Amino acid sequence: MKIALRGGAVTGMVVISLSLLGVGILFFLFGGLQDPQHVPYQLVGFGFGASLVALFAQLGGGIYTKAADVGADLVGKVEAGIPEDDPRNPAVIADLVGDNVGDCAGRGADIFESTAAENVGAMILGTALYPVFGIKGILFPLIVHAINLVASFIGVLVVHSREDQDPMDALNRGYYVTTLLALAGFAGAVYYMLQGRWWLLACGVIGMLTSFLFVRITEYYTETRYRPVQSIANASLTGPATNIISGLAVGMETPAMPVIVISAALLLSYYFGVRGLADSSITDYAKGIYGTAIATMGMLSSAAYILAMDTFGPITDNAGGIIEMSNQPDSVREKTDKLDAAGNTTKALTKGYAIGSAALAAFLLFSAYLETVHGIVAQRFADAHQILPGDWSFTNINLASVPVFVGALLGAMLIFLFSSFAIKAVGRTAQYIIEDVRAQFRENPGIMAGTSKPDYGRCVRIVTGAALKQMVLPGALAVLTPLVVGLVFKNLSGSFHIHIPGEYSPVLNGHSIDLAGAEAVAALLMVGTIVGILMAMLMNNSGGAWDNAKKYIETGAHGGKRSEAHKAAVVGDTVGDPFKDTAGPSLHVLIKLLATVTLVLAPLFL
Amino acid sequence: MKIALRGGAVTGMVVISLSLLGVGILFFLFGGLQDPQHVPYQLVGFGFGASLVALFAQLGGGIYTKAADVGADLVGKVEAGIPEDDPRNPAVIADLVGDNVGDCAGRGADIFESTAAENVGAMILGTALYPVFGIKGILFPLIVHAINLVASFIGVLVVHSREDQDPMDALNRGYYVTTLLALAGFAGAVYYMLQGRWWLLACGVIGMLTSFLFVRITEYYTETRYRPVQSIANASLTGPATNIISGLAVGMETPAMPVIVISAALLLSYYFGVRGLADSSITDYAKGIYGTAIATMGMLSSAAYILAMDTFGPITDNAGGIIEMSNQPDSVREKTDKLDAAGNTTKALTKGYAIGSAALAAFLLFSAYLETVHGIVAQRFADAHQILPGDWSFTNINLASVPVFVGALLGAMLIFLFSSFAIKAVGRTAQYIIEDVRAQFRENPGIMAGTSKPDYGRCVRIVTGAALKQMVLPGALAVLTPLVVGLVFKNLSGSFHIHIPGEYSPVLNGHSIDLAGAEAVAALLMVGTIVGILMAMLMNNSGGAWDNAKKYIETGAHGGKRSEAHKAAVVGDTVGDPFKDTAGPSLHVLIKLLATVTLVLAPLFL
Repeated sequence: MKIALRGGAVTGMVVISLSLLGVGILFFLFGGLQDPQHVPYQLVGFGFGASLVALFAQLGGGIYTKAADVGADLVGKVEAGIPEDDPRNPAVIADLVGDNVGDCAGRGADIFESTAAENVGAMILGTALYPVFGIKGILFPLIVHAINLVASFIGVLVVHSREDQDPMDALNRGYYVTTLLALAGFAGAVYYMLQGRWWLLACGVIGMLTSFLFVRITEYYTETRYRPVQSIANASLTGPATNIISGLAVGMETPAMPVIVISAALLLSYYFGVRGLADSSITDYAKGIYGTAIATMGMLSSAAYILAMDTFGPITDNAGGIIEMSNQPDSVREKTDKLDAAGNTTKALTKGYAIGSAALAAFLLFSAYLETVHGIVAQRFADAHQILPGDWSFTNINLASVPVFVGALLGAMLIFLFSSFAIKAVGRTAQYIIEDVRAQFRENPGIMAGTSKPDYGRCVRIVTGAALKQMVLPGALAVLTPLVVGLVFKNLSGSFHIHIPGEYSPVLNGHSIDLAGAEAVAALLMVGTIVGILMAMLMNNSGGAWDNAKKYIETGAHGGKRSEAHKAAVVGDTVGDPFKDTAGPSLHVLIKLLATVTLVLAPLFL
Repeated sequence: MKIALRGGAVTGMVVISLSLLGVGILFFLFGGLQDPQHVPYQLVGFGFGASLVALFAQLGGGIYTKAADVGADLVGKVEAGIPEDDPRNPAVIADLVGDNVGDCAGRGADIFESTAAENVGAMILGTALYPVFGIKGILFPLIVHAINLVASFIGVLVVHSREDQDPMDALNRGYYVTTLLALAGFAGAVYYMLQGRWWLLACGVIGMLTSFLFVRITEYYTETRYRPVQSIANASLTGPATNIISGLAVGMETPAMPVIVISAALLLSYYFGVRGLADSSITDYAKGIYGTAIATMGMLSSAAYILAMDTFGPITDNAGGIIEMSNQPDSVREKTDKLDAAGNTTKALTKGYAIGSAALAAFLLFSAYLETVHGIVAQRFADAHQILPGDWSFTNINLASVPVFVGALLGAMLIFLFSSFAIKAVGRTAQYIIEDVRAQFRENPGIMAGTSKPDYGRCVRIVTGAALKQMVLPGALAVLTPLVVGLVFKNLSGSFHIHIPGEYSPVLNGHSIDLAGAEAVAALLMVGTIVGILMAMLMNNSGGAWDNAKKYIETGAHGGKRSEAHKAAVVGDTVGDPFKDTAGPSLHVLIKLLATVTLVLAPLFL
């Protein structure tokens, strides 16, 4: 248990440290100490790079793992009639490789990106507070994360578990220790760096509470003992159709509570931000947004520990598999089974955590986008030696204006289309595996007879190539849609814009700057984020609930294994697989990629 | 064929005429001729009433029809082992009644509401054009719809079909005649009432084109001969799980093209509106929005004919059933089968049409909401004998402000939750039926033996009561969410509002009016509408595609009836049923209900 968690902790620590070091080193290399107000904008490229890699890791990994899983099962169990994970199946190694590619690497890249994006976003907002805190406000997020790393490290060290204990209790104890230490560190950082403004510490506490509530809500929707999973298991009694219907109904219900929590967290941290900075001269909006940024930091404060818990899952899973293959005594098996069940829970919880932090980070990046557009316009005026009116700010994304409404419509559509592409990519890649396995069986009849070994490597190569190829279309969709929308709407302000009396576009060289492109992209980003969060919750939680409904029936309920109810539950589980392991987690990354891609491309939209 | 269509036409004509008469008579009774600028606002109640009734008709009807269908099938076919529609099943009459309640009454209420909402919305916008057109601009929508009724009537009359012809060809011919006549009538109305501003006629043409494209796109996604249905049928070969996955992937893909069409239609009609009214003194925004209102009228111009086509479906369906029961010769059967297939297609097409018109009508109602809020503020100033600054307008729904963002988040969440409730209501109501049928079998063993008749009436009563009860929760959700959001955010402007330099809230009696509630509700409405449109498309089209994939396999493809592929396709069809007949169409109505409820409640949010 300790070994598994510490194995996971290595990943967690390394990922967060690298993300932190990357941002920190770039900040100093770019001369952040001399010019702290402009360098954060240049770090956006780092966040964008992280997003792009994360999309490839998560989407490609997700396609890989599920395609290998589905393909191996269909061609092995259904066509050839050999059991799951039978060494005669040429796709079995690809299936095992997929578990690591998708679950560990994918989630690591996801959290790496969340941290990087949040650091960069918070630093950009920190520049707005430069008059108040100086460079300390900009470096605050980096320092807080360094403290959190230490807190998580200690949290991992305190996890001890006795034989007779539920491993979840031990893991939860570590989580509480981490959170308390992070809170103490946060308070210290606020005291020394932010002039002891305790309202800002309250923002951080809100973030921590949000992360706690998200984890608990996910637990409610995906754990066997609560109503949602029970209702799916009951519905399995009347066949696969009712199982699917009730799973989808549960999935559609899941966003409700998290949305209310996020809404409350945003409103409160905004309000506390305004209170905490009441005496400074910046606008209320900048104060409030800085408050939400600190809440995001609070939410991410236990990221390293959560990631250690997440990676803990696959490690115990593989340990269980090895113990089974090597014929260890049953008592050993029981222990790893308990750990395995805890691993399944932590995997679901981290997804809930990841989507919550993605939601907060996205709102932060959205604000950073508005700041960036403002910065670009200011730069143009500076270049032309003209003066930007000091009271102008780019904060007007008006849903009643047609380009903004159309941008919003396209943002929502993008999420649906991306999900569709991601799900279809799994199906297509699985098809390649099925064809290859069939070909191997045909070419070498010794495989089925057990006399010769199948070519595992060929399957791995094929699924790798296919996953990479199938990833191109959804990836391109994510990057190109904001680009196309921004460029198409670039010159539409003239007749499409709502003239708000008093509101104006700044006039440069006699022409007012056209903001329709930048505004349409902002709406695309924001509504895309909203819909993406809800869709990801629907997919992650319905997938998890289907999976556990199946497991619940396997424990003997409703007739147990080999009953009709179990068959129906297996159908639900299979539908849930691409939901929770490909499309859902890819949406987390898509949300952040949309935010960073618009940040990087912003100059093109003006 | 003629009889079926004319039977449908009666519904179509009566529904549209009543809607038109209702709005028209109320307008005159309220003294519209004396005070044309204020009376349209008072008609909002009519639209709200229509929405509420439509929600009950559509949602209650949808729950009724699907619960009776699912319940009767499960308890009859699965438990008792008697064939579908066997008279020994006590729920069989409830099932047949449900077909009429859900399909005919529901859709009729839907279109009634679209027409009523669009009329009221367009008249409210017309008041903004009062300086340009006088009362003619306000009455224009009523006159255009009256002309359209005549056009649809003639369209229905020209439908003749010979024995050897595809009935769809004849129906399409009627559709083209209706559209051409409506176009001519539109041109006449523009000439006499809108000073012959031909750019405005172009807006109407865009609406007609949009309706045409929506129908064609729906056809692509739900007809057997195209890729989407084929891909679902292929996926059925590998079992129910892959059938469900590919059906959901198709469903998520479906919004893409309609969204692009709607976006283009909005942008073009807005632009044409601005061009058409270039010489008048009102703001560009009012001009553009009036353009989109005229496009909506264009889209709804063939509503009566489309509704006739829609009601045609159930009529031919029942005719086929009666012919089968009464042992007519096969040649008669073949004719009605052809008509029945055409009926299925028209049912899917009208749903595509209904969602398209709901989307345009919602944008219109959103603009009407902004106008109404402006009117309320103006009234308060008038009551206090103060002067509202003439340049102030309520058009600023800024996504970067926290209350607006939270409102948007809650709007999207509402759609997901409503869909979940609607789907679950079907399951619960089906449960009541199953219990009653079991009880009847127990109480009276003569039913199964065929010696005594079951109590059909008891089943009908139970499902009616249950459907009405299950409807309460989603219905309350739709009405209460905007109310709660508006009231909660009513007094938050203080610290939460973004201060846009130059933008201001008007000051009354020394206090600036707090707009946060009205703005949050506007965002809820708008993002709820966007997500609702996409969700409804997903559900309608995936449901239709699953249904037709099953029908395609039943024609003999992939092994035909009784093959494994057919069993898998039946699972998909069952999942699709509550999608396409309960949740999807209820979302059309929900969108419009949200719009009218916010219009009616607007005074409470200020």
